[in-house]
Amino acid sequence: MRHFLSTADWSRQELQALIDRARRYRESPQGDALKGKSIALVFFNPSLRTRTSFDLGAHQLGGHAIVLDARGGTWPVEFEDGAIMDGTAEEHVKEAARVLSSYVDLIAIRCFPKFENWTAEREDPLIMAYAKYATVPVINMETIVHPCQELAHMMALQDTIGDVRGKEFLLTWVPHPKPLNTAVANSALLIASKFGMNVRLLIPDEVYRLDQRYMDAAEKFCGDAGTSLTVTTDVKAAYSGAHAVYAKSWGALPFFGQWDGEAPYRAKGAGFMIDDAKMALTDNAVVSHCLPMRRNVKIADSVVDSPAFIGLAEAENRLHVQKAIMETLANGAEP
Amino acid sequence: MRHFLSTADWSRQELQALIDRARRYRESPQGDALKGKSIALVFFNPSLRTRTSFDLGAHQLGGHAIVLDARGGTWPVEFEDGAIMDGTAEEHVKEAARVLSSYVDLIAIRCFPKFENWTAEREDPLIMAYAKYATVPVINMETIVHPCQELAHMMALQDTIGDVRGKEFLLTWVPHPKPLNTAVANSALLIASKFGMNVRLLIPDEVYRLDQRYMDAAEKFCGDAGTSLTVTTDVKAAYSGAHAVYAKSWGALPFFGQWDGEAPYRAKGAGFMIDDAKMALTDNAVVSHCLPMRRNVKIADSVVDSPAFIGLAEAENRLHVQKAIMETLANGAEP
Amino acid sequence: MRHFLSTADWSRQELQALIDRARRYRESPQGDALKGKSIALVFFNPSLRTRTSFDLGAHQLGGHAIVLDARGGTWPVEFEDGAIMDGTAEEHVKEAARVLSSYVDLIAIRCFPKFENWTAEREDPLIMAYAKYATVPVINMETIVHPCQELAHMMALQDTIGDVRGKEFLLTWVPHPKPLNTAVANSALLIASKFGMNVRLLIPDEVYRLDQRYMDAAEKFCGDAGTSLTVTTDVKAAYSGAHAVYAKSWGALPFFGQWDGEAPYRAKGAGFMIDDAKMALTDNAVVSHCLPMRRNVKIADSVVDSPAFIGLAEAENRLHVQKAIMETLANGAEP
Repeated sequence: MRHFLSTADWSRQELQALIDRARRYRESPQGDALKGKSIALVFFNPSLRTRTSFDLGAHQLGGHAIVLDARGGTWPVEFEDGAIMDGTAEEHVKEAARVLSSYVDLIAIRCFPKFENWTAEREDPLIMAYAKYATVPVINMETIVHPCQELAHMMALQDTIGDVRGKEFLLTWVPHPKPLNTAVANSALLIASKFGMNVRLLIPDEVYRLDQRYMDAAEKFCGDAGTSLTVTTDVKAAYSGAHAVYAKSWGALPFFGQWDGEAPYRAKGAGFMIDDAKMALTDNAVVSHCLPMRRNVKIADSVVDSPAFIGLAEAENRLHVQKAIMETLANGAEP
Repeated sequence: MRHFLSTADWSRQELQALIDRARRYRESPQGDALKGKSIALVFFNPSLRTRTSFDLGAHQLGGHAIVLDARGGTWPVEFEDGAIMDGTAEEHVKEAARVLSSYVDLIAIRCFPKFENWTAEREDPLIMAYAKYATVPVINMETIVHPCQELAHMMALQDTIGDVRGKEFLLTWVPHPKPLNTAVANSALLIASKFGMNVRLLIPDEVYRLDQRYMDAAEKFCGDAGTSLTVTTDVKAAYSGAHAVYAKSWGALPFFGQWDGEAPYRAKGAGFMIDDAKMALTDNAVVSHCLPMRRNVKIADSVVDSPAFIGLAEAENRLHVQKAIMETLANGAEP
Repeated sequence: MRHFLSTADWSRQELQALIDRARRYRESPQGDALKGKSIALVFFNPSLRTRTSFDLGAHQLGGHAIVLDARGGTWPVEFEDGAIMDGTAEEHVKEAARVLSSYVDLIAIRCFPKFENWTAEREDPLIMAYAKYATVPVINMETIVHPCQELAHMMALQDTIGDVRGKEFLLTWVPHPKPLNTAVANSALLIASKFGMNVRLLIPDEVYRLDQRYMDAAEKFCGDAGTSLTVTTDVKAAYSGAHAVYAKSWGALPFFGQWDGEAPYRAKGAGFMIDDAKMALTDNAVVSHCLPMRRNVKIADSVVDSPAFIGLAEAENRLHVQKAIMETLANGAEP
C-alpha cells in the first residue's frame, strides 16, 4: 500500500504517469474508478479550493467524499507513543486513523505547521502518524509540502512550455504582510528539480533559504539530471532568461514562530513583487502562483492579467491530478 | 448565459414558468437535469434551510452540491479593481470566481450586508463581482434581495388564493429585538407588484421605507399592471380587505449600521405583531413569513397555528423552485 | 411511525434484529434501502465518527445525507409552547422540525446537555420536541443516551463472547480531567441489562450513581431476566470474574453544572484506570470504550493494545448498525 505524502517518494516516471492520466480526465471528467468507495477529507486548516476539487473529483469518479473539519482545536489528537493523555488531546492518532480506515478507502489530510517549533514540525508529525496507523492510503492536501499543487503546476508548465528539461525555473520569494508556511516553496523546489529543470531560488536574504532537507533533495535531483540549483539575492540575474517564474512568500525559518526579528530581512524583499520590468528580463516566461494570491503585492495586475499567467490553469489542474492520485491509490495500482 | 440574481432581471412570464416547473417537481421530485453537473453553495452567512434545500435539490436532479462555508472571515475577498491587496483580503474575486467556475457548473451565493454602509452595500458588491467574473451562472441565495424566497412565496400564494392579479397584498413591518436585513422585504415588494397585485406597505414610521430602488421598481410594476402601491402607517387601513399578509421585520435604512437612533421609531411599531384582531379585518387573508420566525413577537401563535398560515408551504416550495432555477440555468435554456 | 430515541422504546428482539441486519451489512455494504431518500444530520455538538459513519452509511444505501452544523449557538431554538420569542431563540422547534420533515425522510440529532440544570436536561427537551413535531422518523446520535453506540457495543460483545445472557458485565467509571456527559454510561447500563447480563456498576463514590431513570430501567430489565444489578465501590469485587468491561468517565450528577464541589469525590477514583492488574481479576474479559478515548488515563496502553480490546470493532460497528436503523425507520418496517 502506498501513500501520497510527498513527491519525493514517487519516481519522475510515476509522477509523469499521474499527470498524463490527469490530462485524460481533463478531456473526459467522469469515471468509475472510485465506484462504491469513499474518501475522508480531514481539514485541520481552512480550504475552499482543495475541498471543492477533492470532493468533486471523488464524485466524478463515482466515489463519495466526507469532509471532516477538525479546525478550532475541537478534536486535538495525540501522536506520542505511550503518552499519558491527561492534557488537551482527547484521542490518540492510533485510534483516529484506524477507525477512519475502517469506514473509508482513502484518507486525505491538510495540516499546516503550528508555527511553534520548526525542529518538531519539520517532521510533519500528524500526517506521518496517520500514514503509520491508517490501514488505507493517505494523501497530503498540504502540510509542509503540497504535492498535489506540484503536479498541477508541472502539468500547467508542460502544457505551456512543453518539455521542461533543461529549462530555467525561477522560484522567487515575494512580499506578503505575514510570514507564511514554506510548503509550496518546498514543493516548487522539489518538482522543478525532479523534472530536470535548472532551478534558481531568489530570496531577499540568506535567512530565507528553505529547509536543508528540500535544498538537499533539489541538489540531488539537479545532480542526477545534470542541471543546476542556484540560490541568489540578485533579482536581475535570477530573472534573466527564465522560462518559468513561480511566486511564493514565506517566513524565514530562523525566526520560525518568533517573527519579530524577521522584519529587517523581510524589508530587503520589499521590491520583489513580480512586475512587467522583471518579466521583461525573462525569455518570455510563464508565471504562476498557487491560489489564493494577493494582487499588486505578490504579482502586479498587469502580469496576472497577461497571457503569461498560468495560475488559473494550475488551479483547475488540481481537480484533474487529484483524480489521478485517488484512482491510483484506491486501486493499489501503478499510475 | 444568465444569472439568477434578482427577479427584476426576469420577466413575469419567465418567473411563472419557473413556478410551473416547480409544481411538476413537487409532484415528481427526481430528475436528471443536473446529471454529471455540480453546484458550489458559498455561504458567507449561516443557513440551515437554504443549505438543505439546495443540496437536496441538486442531488434529486442527479447533480452534486459542494457547500463552502466562508463565514468567520477566514477567506476575505477583494472586489476592487486594481487594489493593492496588503490588507486582510487574501484573494481577489477575479480568481475566486474563475477558479470555482473551472470546477463547477453553477455557483450559488449567500452574502448579507455587513450593516456598515448602505450606500456601498446596496450595490450588492460581492455577488455582483462573482456574476461579473464567473464563467458559469450565479444564483442569489439571499443578499439584499432573496429571489428564491420570492418564487416560493408566489407559488404558495397562487396555490391558496389562485390568480393573484388585482388581489390586495399587505407587506407589514413586524417587531423584532434586532434591526434586520431588508432583503426579504425588498423581495416581497418586487414579486407582489410584478405579479399584478395591489401592494400595501405598512410601516411604523416613514424611516422604515425601503430603498428607493425597490420602491421605484414596485411603482413601475404596479403602473404597468394598473394596480397601486400604497405606503401607510395606518394598521387598520392596511389590513382592511387584504387577501395576503406578509410579515417581515427590518432596520430603518437612515440608521443603517448606527442603530442607536432607531429605537424611538421602532417603538412606534410595538403593536404591529400579526394577531387575530388584525386578521379579522382582512378578506380571509393568508399569512406568511420566511423562516426562521419568532412566534408571539412577529406573529401570534393563534395565527401561525391557523389554516391561514402558509409559511410552511412556502418553506417547502424553496426546494421545488430552486430545482427549477438550477435546471434552467444549468441547461442554458428558457424556463 | 417510530423514532429511534432510546433502546428503551424497542424490544430486545427488535434490537437483536437490527444487530443481525448490521452483520449482513458488514458482509455486503452496498444496498438500495435509501434510494431516492435523504437524511438530515443535525449536530449541536462536534462529531467526526458519527458524522462519517452516518453520511457514509446513507450513501452506501443509495441515500443522501445532509450535515447541518448547528454548533455555536448560531441557530438557537425555542421548545416551550406559547413562548414569547423575544430572547435569543430565532425559531421554534415546531417550524424547524416540520420544515426539515418536508425536505428529508429521516432526521438524526446530536445534542448534549448544556451542563446547566440536570432536572431540565434529563428530559432531553430538544430531541423530544423534534420527535413530537417532525413528521419523519428521528434518530438519536447522542443526547443523554447513545443508543447507536449501544447496538454497536452489543454487536461487538456477541461477536467475541457469544451469547451474553448470564454473563458478567462491568461498567466502570474511569478517570478523566473533566466531568463528562453520562449518555454512554446510561446506555451501557440499558443495553447490558436488557440483553440479560448481570450488571456491575463500579463507581468511586455513591455520588456517581447514574440517573434514577436508568438505574430503575436496568433494575427492571435485570428483574425480568433473572439477573442482578450491583453497584459497588470495591474495585476487586467488581472485576472478579467479569466477562466484559466497559469504561466510561462522567461527572457526578449532584454537582451537575457546578463542578467545583465534585473534586474530592473524583479524587477517590484516581486509581480506577483499567490496567493489567485489574484485568487479571476477570474471566478473560473483553474491554471496550466508545471513542475518543484517552490512553493511559482511562485505559492503559497494555490493555488497549491487547487482543482483549474491542473498541475498534465497536467503532466500526457504528456504521453497520446505523445502516440497519436507517433502513428500518425509512421503510416503516419492522427490523
